[in-house]
Amino acid sequence: MDFFFKPKGIALIGASANPAKGGYHILKNLKVGFKRNIYPVNPGYTEIEGLKSYSSVLEVPDPVDLAIVFIPAPMVPQVVHQCAERGIKGVMIQSAGFAESGEKGKALQQEIIQIHKKTGIRLWGPNCMGLVDAVHGLVFSFVLPAIWEEGLIPGNVSLVVQSGMLSAGFLIDLMTHGTMGISKACSIGNKADIDECDVLEYLIEDPDTGTIGLYLESIPNGRKFTDLCKRSGKPIVVLKGGKSQKGAEAAMSHTASLAGNGAVISGALAQVGVVEAYDFKQMMDLCRALAQYPDIPREKNGRVAILTMSGAAGIMSTDFIDQNGLSVANLSRDTEEALKNLFPDWMPITNPIDLWPAVELHGRKKAFGEAFRAVCRDPDVDAILIHLFVFASVSKANISQLVEMAKAAGKPLFCWLMGKRDEAHQFQMLSQELGIPAFPELYRAVECMAAVFSLKREISN
Amino acid sequence: MDFFFKPKGIALIGASANPAKGGYHILKNLKVGFKRNIYPVNPGYTEIEGLKSYSSVLEVPDPVDLAIVFIPAPMVPQVVHQCAERGIKGVMIQSAGFAESGEKGKALQQEIIQIHKKTGIRLWGPNCMGLVDAVHGLVFSFVLPAIWEEGLIPGNVSLVVQSGMLSAGFLIDLMTHGTMGISKACSIGNKADIDECDVLEYLIEDPDTGTIGLYLESIPNGRKFTDLCKRSGKPIVVLKGGKSQKGAEAAMSHTASLAGNGAVISGALAQVGVVEAYDFKQMMDLCRALAQYPDIPREKNGRVAILTMSGAAGIMSTDFIDQNGLSVANLSRDTEEALKNLFPDWMPITNPIDLWPAVELHGRKKAFGEAFRAVCRDPDVDAILIHLFVFASVSKANISQLVEMAKAAGKPLFCWLMGKRDEAHQFQMLSQELGIPAFPELYRAVECMAAVFSLKREISN
Repeated sequence: MDFFFKPKGIALIGASANPAKGGYHILKNLKVGFKRNIYPVNPGYTEIEGLKSYSSVLEVPDPVDLAIVFIPAPMVPQVVHQCAERGIKGVMIQSAGFAESGEKGKALQQEIIQIHKKTGIRLWGPNCMGLVDAVHGLVFSFVLPAIWEEGLIPGNVSLVVQSGMLSAGFLIDLMTHGTMGISKACSIGNKADIDECDVLEYLIEDPDTGTIGLYLESIPNGRKFTDLCKRSGKPIVVLKGGKSQKGAEAAMSHTASLAGNGAVISGALAQVGVVEAYDFKQMMDLCRALAQYPDIPREKNGRVAILTMSGAAGIMSTDFIDQNGLSVANLSRDTEEALKNLFPDWMPITNPIDLWPAVELHGRKKAFGEAFRAVCRDPDVDAILIHLFVFASVSKANISQLVEMAKAAGKPLFCWLMGKRDEAHQFQMLSQELGIPAFPELYRAVECMAAVFSLKREISN
Repeated sequence: MDFFFKPKGIALIGASANPAKGGYHILKNLKVGFKRNIYPVNPGYTEIEGLKSYSSVLEVPDPVDLAIVFIPAPMVPQVVHQCAERGIKGVMIQSAGFAESGEKGKALQQEIIQIHKKTGIRLWGPNCMGLVDAVHGLVFSFVLPAIWEEGLIPGNVSLVVQSGMLSAGFLIDLMTHGTMGISKACSIGNKADIDECDVLEYLIEDPDTGTIGLYLESIPNGRKFTDLCKRSGKPIVVLKGGKSQKGAEAAMSHTASLAGNGAVISGALAQVGVVEAYDFKQMMDLCRALAQYPDIPREKNGRVAILTMSGAAGIMSTDFIDQNGLSVANLSRDTEEALKNLFPDWMPITNPIDLWPAVELHGRKKAFGEAFRAVCRDPDVDAILIHLFVFASVSKANISQLVEMAKAAGKPLFCWLMGKRDEAHQFQMLSQELGIPAFPELYRAVECMAAVFSLKREISN
């Protein structure tokens, strides 16, 4: 599979000099990221964007082990044949017009599958957006080159998706909002040959991947898939589309997928320690939380200390922790003593720890710093949930210190983040740099906490 | 109650010239919004911010019917007495240090309740953030005057909250993110006299309020509250804090509230047509959706047309619609004909309506415009869910046309909005202006759709 992820050279079949065409976007993206050993193939040109253009893939010189194909579907089988003949190992077919598009398309897909079977050449797609690798700065995709403008933010979450949208517009949404960085985003389309199992197997061994998220409309080889999940040392999150009857029908017309029985799939995934997501962004939130905290020891059971400046937010956090199978920590004697020194006399020591009165007495830095230190040291606290009202609770400098403390104590820290739009965004970006998951919705923060703890509980069963 | 919301003049007891003090913030906020008939009371000054300062409320001239109090708790009872003596009708006590803060505070609260009972003067608070009225530009609160910087965005949702945070930092978060505008935000604190029932009763009659959202930690007068909800012609959303055992204990120490049995409360609220929320921002999302579409006819049952450019998002929408008791519309013959003219030959006509191939054939404007027109006319479609990938799906000019079409057809339109941060934000602000609810999370969009339809189903029972 390395020739898909780390090719030595790439033939781009369907390269174009027309900025309105996908074949132009792919070429631009290759030039920015992959940089060398790019061989445009298009008989209509002798040169495109300063590169020699070849009239056939058969003429492309070494080194070349991958072909990216973006030509009309009816022309694809012949080209795949030529790629095999040329000794190219993998073909990434980004053109649509195959099994998802009626009888003719289905026949074309069968045709390329036959070539794969006969020659051994591997097929990625068709009907896909290809691959984005933010760690190595590679975009093998017709996604608009605008994706580079905001910078591809590298992270250690890799995605496998049966959806073009999830590997294009969605990534731009995630990266510009500072939600998360990405390692590899793999859009596998119709899965004519390469499927979720192949890519999952590769990512489980991939040193740049910490957590794997998959959006799938079908899992045809369920046994192989769950076996892979079971032996993965990395957290895996699955969002399964088409779990309802009507949704299953829609999946059939989207990627010709047999969606299967939703409840059965959920049960099988839970058994092998997979965290099941229920929405797109929620899947990403689960992924980034698990990517930050993949190694919570199994004996831990999620006793949470809540630091807040809002009584109401403390109460709702408590409700959510209860609903999600975590528990509100009973603070140790030492923590209670430390808080007594911060709180006004009349105030009972409780968890959630409402720091508003302490902030009024001692200022933000002392109140948050000392309370935070106490819960980090507390043997009865496994995780910390902090509510940040940007520029009212903890300053940027102080949050870095708190993060260091939590890391030193080995306690996962989660933030609920509120505030004025631009300031909140800056804090979101900072939290990403510091490696702590921050969420604009409180329930989501607790849900992700629960996933971090329950994942290992599932696996240990 | 009008003297709290539309006072003729305000005595500010505890006014300060020190910019670090709450008494300064309240004064600044009054000067910006309320503008005239403001009477600072503080024996330490003869003048504050250009206004004559009085040494006692007894000296304040007419017109004055409201006092805002921000002085240490032990001094409050005497001042409330003086206010009654002066003929002031209402006192809004924003100071903390009452029932929420131990035995001494409880005694002080009892003392002011006795004065209320003896003199008839009405008490708002104590331990509250007062009132923000974005429609009339009034801020009766010690919230930082920074709240004015982004402009108070007026809307027709009013809030009643037992939480300072929800009426301060949270409003700034909502308004700067373009999530929603606000009519009145009422922070009622310890509810020594004025409680959620009093304010709810007022808001039900308030012409500036369309939908009412309440965050409550206790509903001591449950019968009165549910009776009010039942006869409200306006949608009501309740977020109840302290539904878990641990959460109830936390509520006791936050606002000395007896949280009650969560399941019993949920049942009672559902019976009178209240929509129950489960998180802070989700409550606001429900409120703004219901505010836009308060009058869905009872016989409608929520048959949804889905317009998308992503097969995956169409499938997930279908799953969510199914889970939330709505249904995916079976398109009428006429709609099918209209779509046939847009779709490529091979493509089956389905709902979700995947417009990607049609956009490739005809461009965005025609594909979205004609499909939208068809579902607006379709007698078997009650609501429209559109997925907007900003600047890839529908332009700003076009969305305005679509909104007009949906309004003319009387069909609620909901948007799932994705895209580059700044562009998505502009679209969010535009959608607010146009009066259509847009959501960055798909599940939330469907959940709010379901609330819009189910609300009336509940009421009609």
